[in-house]
Amino acid sequence: MVKEMGKEGSFEHEIHGQHGRDYVDPPPAPLLDMEELKQFVATLLFLYVSVATVIGYKSQADPCATVGFLGVAWAFGGMIFILVYCTAGISGGHINPAVTFGLLLARKLSLVRAVAYMVSQCLGAIAGAGLVKAVMKDDYNSLGGGVNSVSSGYSKGTALGAEIIGTFVLVYTVFSATDPKRKARYSFVPILVPLPIGFAVFVVHLATIPITGTGINPARSLGPAVIYNKKTIWDDHWIFWAGPFLGALAAALYHQ
Amino acid sequence: MVKEMGKEGSFEHEIHGQHGRDYVDPPPAPLLDMEELKQFVATLLFLYVSVATVIGYKSQADPCATVGFLGVAWAFGGMIFILVYCTAGISGGHINPAVTFGLLLARKLSLVRAVAYMVSQCLGAIAGAGLVKAVMKDDYNSLGGGVNSVSSGYSKGTALGAEIIGTFVLVYTVFSATDPKRKARYSFVPILVPLPIGFAVFVVHLATIPITGTGINPARSLGPAVIYNKKTIWDDHWIFWAGPFLGALAAALYHQ
Amino acid sequence: MVKEMGKEGSFEHEIHGQHGRDYVDPPPAPLLDMEELKQFVATLLFLYVSVATVIGYKSQADPCATVGFLGVAWAFGGMIFILVYCTAGISGGHINPAVTFGLLLARKLSLVRAVAYMVSQCLGAIAGAGLVKAVMKDDYNSLGGGVNSVSSGYSKGTALGAEIIGTFVLVYTVFSATDPKRKARYSFVPILVPLPIGFAVFVVHLATIPITGTGINPARSLGPAVIYNKKTIWDDHWIFWAGPFLGALAAALYHQ
Amino acid sequence: MVKEMGKEGSFEHEIHGQHGRDYVDPPPAPLLDMEELKQFVATLLFLYVSVATVIGYKSQADPCATVGFLGVAWAFGGMIFILVYCTAGISGGHINPAVTFGLLLARKLSLVRAVAYMVSQCLGAIAGAGLVKAVMKDDYNSLGGGVNSVSSGYSKGTALGAEIIGTFVLVYTVFSATDPKRKARYSFVPILVPLPIGFAVFVVHLATIPITGTGINPARSLGPAVIYNKKTIWDDHWIFWAGPFLGALAAALYHQ
Repeated sequence: MVKEMGKEGSFEHEIHGQHGRDYVDPPPAPLLDMEELKQFVATLLFLYVSVATVIGYKSQADPCATVGFLGVAWAFGGMIFILVYCTAGISGGHINPAVTFGLLLARKLSLVRAVAYMVSQCLGAIAGAGLVKAVMKDDYNSLGGGVNSVSSGYSKGTALGAEIIGTFVLVYTVFSATDPKRKARYSFVPILVPLPIGFAVFVVHLATIPITGTGINPARSLGPAVIYNKKTIWDDHWIFWAGPFLGALAAALYHQ
Repeated sequence: MVKEMGKEGSFEHEIHGQHGRDYVDPPPAPLLDMEELKQFVATLLFLYVSVATVIGYKSQADPCATVGFLGVAWAFGGMIFILVYCTAGISGGHINPAVTFGLLLARKLSLVRAVAYMVSQCLGAIAGAGLVKAVMKDDYNSLGGGVNSVSSGYSKGTALGAEIIGTFVLVYTVFSATDPKRKARYSFVPILVPLPIGFAVFVVHLATIPITGTGINPARSLGPAVIYNKKTIWDDHWIFWAGPFLGALAAALYHQ
Repeated sequence: MVKEMGKEGSFEHEIHGQHGRDYVDPPPAPLLDMEELKQFVATLLFLYVSVATVIGYKSQADPCATVGFLGVAWAFGGMIFILVYCTAGISGGHINPAVTFGLLLARKLSLVRAVAYMVSQCLGAIAGAGLVKAVMKDDYNSLGGGVNSVSSGYSKGTALGAEIIGTFVLVYTVFSATDPKRKARYSFVPILVPLPIGFAVFVVHLATIPITGTGINPARSLGPAVIYNKKTIWDDHWIFWAGPFLGALAAALYHQ
Repeated sequence: MVKEMGKEGSFEHEIHGQHGRDYVDPPPAPLLDMEELKQFVATLLFLYVSVATVIGYKSQADPCATVGFLGVAWAFGGMIFILVYCTAGISGGHINPAVTFGLLLARKLSLVRAVAYMVSQCLGAIAGAGLVKAVMKDDYNSLGGGVNSVSSGYSKGTALGAEIIGTFVLVYTVFSATDPKRKARYSFVPILVPLPIGFAVFVVHLATIPITGTGINPARSLGPAVIYNKKTIWDDHWIFWAGPFLGALAAALYHQ
């Protein structure tokens, strides 16, 4: 009975009686639409709150009064904590194409589903960034639009490296939180799930904001790029897809 | 007795087998008074700590030494975490007319009870803001009284939009935390309850302080407005009722 | 069986099988010494970390680089979180004469034991403040010694009021965390215990540092006063005993 | 199978009935290599994120916009929270030679294993610091390399004292989290495990950054020292081994 509990890759954990199960794809069509909608809404909320924090912080005259980089890191990490808490289950709380890619590599969901998730996440991210622009129009354009880019003083290679390691930390935490052996053995593993995932996003931002602003999530990078849409932004954009996907690949290999 | 506990929509969760129940109104009069008293006291404490943090932070000569916007966001989010922890159960840990309205829409409590809660929350908020004024008299009046208003550079429409989205994030989290299917399926849902709700308030403040100071709670906006009571404050006050109620309505619709 | 679980006033909670029990005093002498020793060590560590944070923050040339009031609030709240986690059980994780007084009023421990705890806490606090002075000698004396006092612009009456309300928030949280009915009914109540208590200390500091530096714990106020020992400090010292004890009394009355 | 899980001294906890067991060494060779690899990777990630935060924060032109000491403290504490969550079980989530030493003193693992862990941790720390240098080359060298040293105004003796007390707080928390009696008695003890350990690292950094930058982990001190490798750094380096080992020894004695 115990060995049927909490199969690998799922956030599920039953305290008694019913058994957890894998990320098996649910039966087809209508329900599937629901899940993609949830991915869309969650990524929209994620981008809105986090990018609005970035723009709002930059718009303040007195830099000491604002939330600073620390508040920005909390906005990203705190939203991921909330959204993993709120969406885990049906759609697995991905909210991030790199996480979806990692779970695809670990055979936790099908290729079709993974692609549908990623598309939903990217559309949600574009909508979320658009919402920030609608609310903060002038500031959004004049204060950088919340896009990711390589900071001056860093090469593309080092920026790519920073994105790879940062995403590794995140996806490694996701794998650790969904490992069925660990879930069965340590009571804190299934119970704290959204907290270490949120904290992983938080601390990676502390380290990586000065380097790239911190992507570790291609949808998060794409949304503001589409809305801001200045040519210079697109030059480095590949880094924010290649880095997270390579980081997720490395975490999937390490986990096995 | 035990088997009647923890039905749908409540924060209740029984570890041993029995299933949740709805926010059914408890038997009438005397106990009911207790619940309204708890709402009153909780909202009073919420306003006192959060508004005192706002005024205290503005009163410091050295802006870098103070808690800043980040500390203000923690005061609001941290108090909601504590108060949901302390009051959930009897009164459901509302402390916010928009949350009460959302749960009314989801038929988790009766209209009479919902109105009684909202009145208690508003009276508590007025008392809490009054307490801040009693302690910090001059600073309270000269430093804005902790009221919500539309910041310069933002229109009433965008301020309304920001209040709607911010409240959506909060009420969506409350619904996710009280969904009986999720509570039964994921052990972290019933066990972490107050933490994501507190974090929702925290991160929405990070994003929205530069826009409106952050309402997402009509009682929180009303209390300081009544105590500060300058004419200009009342012009925008409707935003802090319309926004949160529309956001709660959207979250209730989305949840279904 | 269930109704025997988690009796009032104890942090204990058994997931299954064994029953929680009240704060009954354990059998006398030798073990009792252990508990007082634990109170002493915990309060020593609390004062050392929190007061060293205060002095270290004030000693930095660049105020923006330091942890600020926000970091100070985290030091106090974070230490209480850790120490309640580490000491709850044998000695109940008091670390604060006002909390001990509140639990005495609620008849959770005997008068003799309560006095022994308070003495241990005060001695631990003096030792902890002494340790900070030993490590940071000059800075400790020149930067205020981490003592509590009434800030300029506040009267003794308002400072007393702020201490009463702040302690009420803390002791109200402690009572909510140890209420046997709540522990049996909501799974998050017994499982999160140290977190809301630590957060209560954190948010009360955000609100009260500008007023009194924040006492809400007579041992925390006494320790630095004894080590710093300037005459002016003692004039207001009664506020940091009267306020917390009145706040704990109010919380005990409200809880019933 | 199940009944062998979760014995004394480990982070393990079985929800259903069986009791914990000691940190007994698992059967020899091949698996052992896995555990050392996990220690290596975890310490590498710890050093990378935390030291990159230190260098990135110092590299910002506007000190008020950066994460400050508070963000640095969160990077260290947050990473330890994540890594204890992710690695606890197989290798016990040490990531710190002082913690390994403390658990060796408490006879939770063999001398051979303890030494292998410490070597893995030190190699991981060197690699992590090297990775920061690879990403942030010029800044790494010009901004101090994230090394620990005795701040001006402090003697070697007081720095040693601060390292001893800080490590005591950490190892005392680890012992409290793994005590089988406490785990059986308080449901929050086994469920929150990584959180108080992470918070211990966080608050000790708040207090100790101004004194030594905060070691309380010889691997964390060694890694940047090897990569930065300026002669002056090595003069004080013994403090960051003697202090943590003495602090762990004191915590082990106190726990018994």
